[in-house]
Amino acid sequence: MNRSCLAIILAAGEGTRMRSTLPKVLHRIAGRSMLAHVLAEVQEAGADRLVVVVGPDHDRVAAEALKVAPHAEIVVQKERLGTAHAVLAAKEALKQPVDDVVVAFADTPLITADVFSDLRKPLASGAAVSVLGFEAENPFGYGRLLVEDEKLVAIREEKEASDQEKAVRLCNAGLMAFQGEGLLDILNAIGNDNAKGEFYLTDAVSIAAAAGKLASAVYADEETVKGVNDKVQLASAEATMQQRLRNRALVAGVTMTAPETVFLSFDTCFGKDVEIEPNVFFAPGVSVGDGVTIHAYSHLEGATIKNNVSVGPFARLRPGAVLGEKAKVGNFVEIKKTELGEGAKVSHLTYLGDATIGSDVNIGAGTITCNYDGYDKFQTVIRDGAFIGSNSSLVAPVVVGQGAFVGSGSVITGDVPDNALAIARGIQVEKKDWATKFRKTKKK
Amino acid sequence: MNRSCLAIILAAGEGTRMRSTLPKVLHRIAGRSMLAHVLAEVQEAGADRLVVVVGPDHDRVAAEALKVAPHAEIVVQKERLGTAHAVLAAKEALKQPVDDVVVAFADTPLITADVFSDLRKPLASGAAVSVLGFEAENPFGYGRLLVEDEKLVAIREEKEASDQEKAVRLCNAGLMAFQGEGLLDILNAIGNDNAKGEFYLTDAVSIAAAAGKLASAVYADEETVKGVNDKVQLASAEATMQQRLRNRALVAGVTMTAPETVFLSFDTCFGKDVEIEPNVFFAPGVSVGDGVTIHAYSHLEGATIKNNVSVGPFARLRPGAVLGEKAKVGNFVEIKKTELGEGAKVSHLTYLGDATIGSDVNIGAGTITCNYDGYDKFQTVIRDGAFIGSNSSLVAPVVVGQGAFVGSGSVITGDVPDNALAIARGIQVEKKDWATKFRKTKKK
Amino acid sequence: MNRSCLAIILAAGEGTRMRSTLPKVLHRIAGRSMLAHVLAEVQEAGADRLVVVVGPDHDRVAAEALKVAPHAEIVVQKERLGTAHAVLAAKEALKQPVDDVVVAFADTPLITADVFSDLRKPLASGAAVSVLGFEAENPFGYGRLLVEDEKLVAIREEKEASDQEKAVRLCNAGLMAFQGEGLLDILNAIGNDNAKGEFYLTDAVSIAAAAGKLASAVYADEETVKGVNDKVQLASAEATMQQRLRNRALVAGVTMTAPETVFLSFDTCFGKDVEIEPNVFFAPGVSVGDGVTIHAYSHLEGATIKNNVSVGPFARLRPGAVLGEKAKVGNFVEIKKTELGEGAKVSHLTYLGDATIGSDVNIGAGTITCNYDGYDKFQTVIRDGAFIGSNSSLVAPVVVGQGAFVGSGSVITGDVPDNALAIARGIQVEKKDWATKFRKTKKK
Repeated sequence: MNRSCLAIILAAGEGTRMRSTLPKVLHRIAGRSMLAHVLAEVQEAGADRLVVVVGPDHDRVAAEALKVAPHAEIVVQKERLGTAHAVLAAKEALKQPVDDVVVAFADTPLITADVFSDLRKPLASGAAVSVLGFEAENPFGYGRLLVEDEKLVAIREEKEASDQEKAVRLCNAGLMAFQGEGLLDILNAIGNDNAKGEFYLTDAVSIAAAAGKLASAVYADEETVKGVNDKVQLASAEATMQQRLRNRALVAGVTMTAPETVFLSFDTCFGKDVEIEPNVFFAPGVSVGDGVTIHAYSHLEGATIKNNVSVGPFARLRPGAVLGEKAKVGNFVEIKKTELGEGAKVSHLTYLGDATIGSDVNIGAGTITCNYDGYDKFQTVIRDGAFIGSNSSLVAPVVVGQGAFVGSGSVITGDVPDNALAIARGIQVEKKDWATKFRKTKKK
Repeated sequence: MNRSCLAIILAAGEGTRMRSTLPKVLHRIAGRSMLAHVLAEVQEAGADRLVVVVGPDHDRVAAEALKVAPHAEIVVQKERLGTAHAVLAAKEALKQPVDDVVVAFADTPLITADVFSDLRKPLASGAAVSVLGFEAENPFGYGRLLVEDEKLVAIREEKEASDQEKAVRLCNAGLMAFQGEGLLDILNAIGNDNAKGEFYLTDAVSIAAAAGKLASAVYADEETVKGVNDKVQLASAEATMQQRLRNRALVAGVTMTAPETVFLSFDTCFGKDVEIEPNVFFAPGVSVGDGVTIHAYSHLEGATIKNNVSVGPFARLRPGAVLGEKAKVGNFVEIKKTELGEGAKVSHLTYLGDATIGSDVNIGAGTITCNYDGYDKFQTVIRDGAFIGSNSSLVAPVVVGQGAFVGSGSVITGDVPDNALAIARGIQVEKKDWATKFRKTKKK
Repeated sequence: MNRSCLAIILAAGEGTRMRSTLPKVLHRIAGRSMLAHVLAEVQEAGADRLVVVVGPDHDRVAAEALKVAPHAEIVVQKERLGTAHAVLAAKEALKQPVDDVVVAFADTPLITADVFSDLRKPLASGAAVSVLGFEAENPFGYGRLLVEDEKLVAIREEKEASDQEKAVRLCNAGLMAFQGEGLLDILNAIGNDNAKGEFYLTDAVSIAAAAGKLASAVYADEETVKGVNDKVQLASAEATMQQRLRNRALVAGVTMTAPETVFLSFDTCFGKDVEIEPNVFFAPGVSVGDGVTIHAYSHLEGATIKNNVSVGPFARLRPGAVLGEKAKVGNFVEIKKTELGEGAKVSHLTYLGDATIGSDVNIGAGTITCNYDGYDKFQTVIRDGAFIGSNSSLVAPVVVGQGAFVGSGSVITGDVPDNALAIARGIQVEKKDWATKFRKTKKK
């Protein structure tokens, strides 16, 4: 679409029913805030200018908006006097010429770029106002969209609706788009002569109609337009989003034994021939290569997994984990800020943090990189082909050379030369019949 | 309600379809036995006297009843001759004057105190009998409640019902409440002139009616009145109970990414701003403070978690775990009978048992408290600000002083003074080119 | 049934919608390939001869068929010219006399032996052809079974159906069985005069009818006959299969808190009084004895669990794990090719591989068997009643004698005699006020 587009995202709601100190629109769905979802989708739908309307005390909301959309403009709605009042908080931005203005809500996180694009289409054909509707299973309580000859004539609130109008199941989803030219006139014409004394954006439809301008309705399904006002609805929106993400992965060829137990983030990406056992959790920032198998009960975040890697069960990959081709990370293993070379194996009960592991390295069970001294973090380097015996402690900073061996149970504090064996453990001492005597003592 | 109330809980069923050596009513739902659920709910509904009717060999049922309701009276039903016969096992208790008598079943664990209270209400208004009904989706096989002018006229069994009566969807849930006065007369009037030769409590309705007394019906939904007779129904009742508990938590403001994967106990309690990732299991006795995050794949039992703590993923908290404010328990960590001070961190692959950990202590990855000698358990004490290097073994009884350091990989067998460093590990020895020679041997 | 039976399994489909390099019919459901499921069920239904029709490049399909049914005959369908053409690839096998011929599809893995048996029944009563049908919720697109006087008259494709025929909801599931005698004549009579120019096996019905032979239809439910063509359908078939397996376990008396979170394999078997917490994964080859409890987040494969064992939470049992009676395997424990004696305890953070553990052995937290030197695996033997102190490393090959003790944190490289104590650890050294000085350095 060649038309310029300003999106105004209303993010000033209090969200008291969330019962949370976190502002409502910062609650996350599929790993990012609802606000970030909406900002991403409106931009994908062509919005090249963004205004986020926040409440007076919502510095955190403003900060999140600027984090995910650095060029967004933040405006503050000082009082909460209705949706039209909220949009007018963006008055300065509206004074600059623009073709389309989309008004979105930061608490309807399931609306996709496609829906926003659909909403803009009538504007390109000359409509002054475009309203998003949905067919409600139970329309009670919603404003009804009254459509005649494909024109949207009015939005009728429940209590003002006639019986015939009440039978209409097309309802107002709240989302609207406007022809930029003339919008300020429409907004200024909206009054607050109603029960709550608020300025409602929906009045724009009748004002436009009265001025002989065209209003249109476009439709999305009910699930898509659902807003989030409490934790039950948040969980429900999360479930819908997960279903979308899982389905997308399945269609692309990912094998999941039980998709309903796999939790994805908005940005999880998969190669070909990926298999996922039940109960895998993908926090943001995970990229999975071809031919990868992820076993049950794995928890991944900010990790890059190259081709033909095997992960889990019971693996924890933290940000900065990079697993090279054919690497293997097994059970009860945590990997943080660590790169594993091609074919490296870390099969059991290990913590690798701040480390660089070469190709074909074998890390024995129970190995720990001792990377922290209470103040700073230090690096462990293990070069290609080295073998770390089980239950070893690698006290960083330390380098284990190429092809070197570390004896099981060693505490390695100094660098190990290439191809050397390093052992650092106590000498075995035997106390004959000690156990027999010990048992006698205990049985007294 | 000011009326005195005796609850008779029928817990004598054999439960052969459970295919279990555990008596049916001792099977657990949301962390406690079905019997305990029913005892708790009838007491919350005002029952101040309790009689539990058990079968002849059910010592374990009696023991459970007395554990959760120490003042309950246990009576034995020697033969199983029907529900009225079972209630008459409580004859002695019934001889003492009481306003209301509620008859409950220990295998319908989903009936809430509210429902029991509703059942008592008609008695306060003069009804002799009050019967719990429900609208069955498919009434076939159930006794129908025949109601005229808001009076319960009869309970008609399926096989004796006319076609018109069969069309009635209000069914008998089994639960009944009685005016205490006159109840023994009613019970004694119940006969066993029927196919099975059993004494049915439902006959009380027609007996009361015949004596000119009023019977009433109150209603609950079908899901609530469901009984448990096999493991499929047990799993179904568990699912319903979990849904209730999860919903209660969500409404109270707990954030759950996927509520359907979180398993709660009857007594799990949450503060404000709690976040729970998917797949967390709460066994009984867990209390969670404000601002706590519990990551995926965590298993908690008998643990107290104070404000702003982070738990998991892959954390196991066992009874006696007390996590102080801002403490952190990370992945593959087990905590048992251990108190963590404010800000203490136990991030990875650690077992702490029988320990007291001061504030701001850092426990390195792979640390193990060696608390058991095969006979006794011993205490580990780590004072404020101490730093335990990774992969250390703390052989209890042992005290690590305030601000002390333990070098990585140490086996600490003696107390460490305040601010000292203790190291107990082998000396690193290097064998040059050993690995080169070793590989040659192996490749032969 | 006394009739001989040849099953022809069509396994030549390309499966491009699976978007996978793995041939479609090798995708697994409940731990075995779809092909293996079908081969198992047809054999259970009495098929004593098996022919598997594979595509030209499907060596892996042939290999899987021979692995699970070594006496199966493999034939190659060189071109894909329709189902009748595929069946004719088995022409040589069809030349040998046989009573019944069942044609099955390797991508409909939910069809049970009972359904295959039902399909054979009409043949025993003289029918020439037997077709599996189902009542479709939405029949659009399926071939309709036209039945008159209990005879199957024709299979009508959607596009050739009259409006009246389109209203028929009995649809063709694809599966057919034939009287062996005369089948080759029927197959040879099938032409390819249709839009795609393919030879359709369904034409056998009208050919048989034209020859005055009887055709019959038998029915299964829609869920059972579902085929798998993409990863969404694969996940759906897995879900159906899991529901069957879980239900079978529940009915047999297994207690599962949340059956929908327990994943079973086709061959998982359970004793009495088994309890399973949520989120347990059974890969193939697991056998569970009486009185066993498996706690949440456990992952089991190829393991034998004897009576009254406790497993997990967070346990990983790998192939060759054998847990003796009353043994206990706790959290973050991995057991591989290891036998635990009666009453042995391995409670926390342990790796046991290639080991034999006696009865009443206690393995302390953090114990690691160091069983691998980069080339070979070695055995660890721990005899009855031994006690392995926490955080020990057992460097195999090594034997710990009966009743012996290993001190916590030891690295055991030599055998330990019966009842001796072995210690192999560093000596504790103390550096007074080291930490005070260290902190000063760090705070600069």
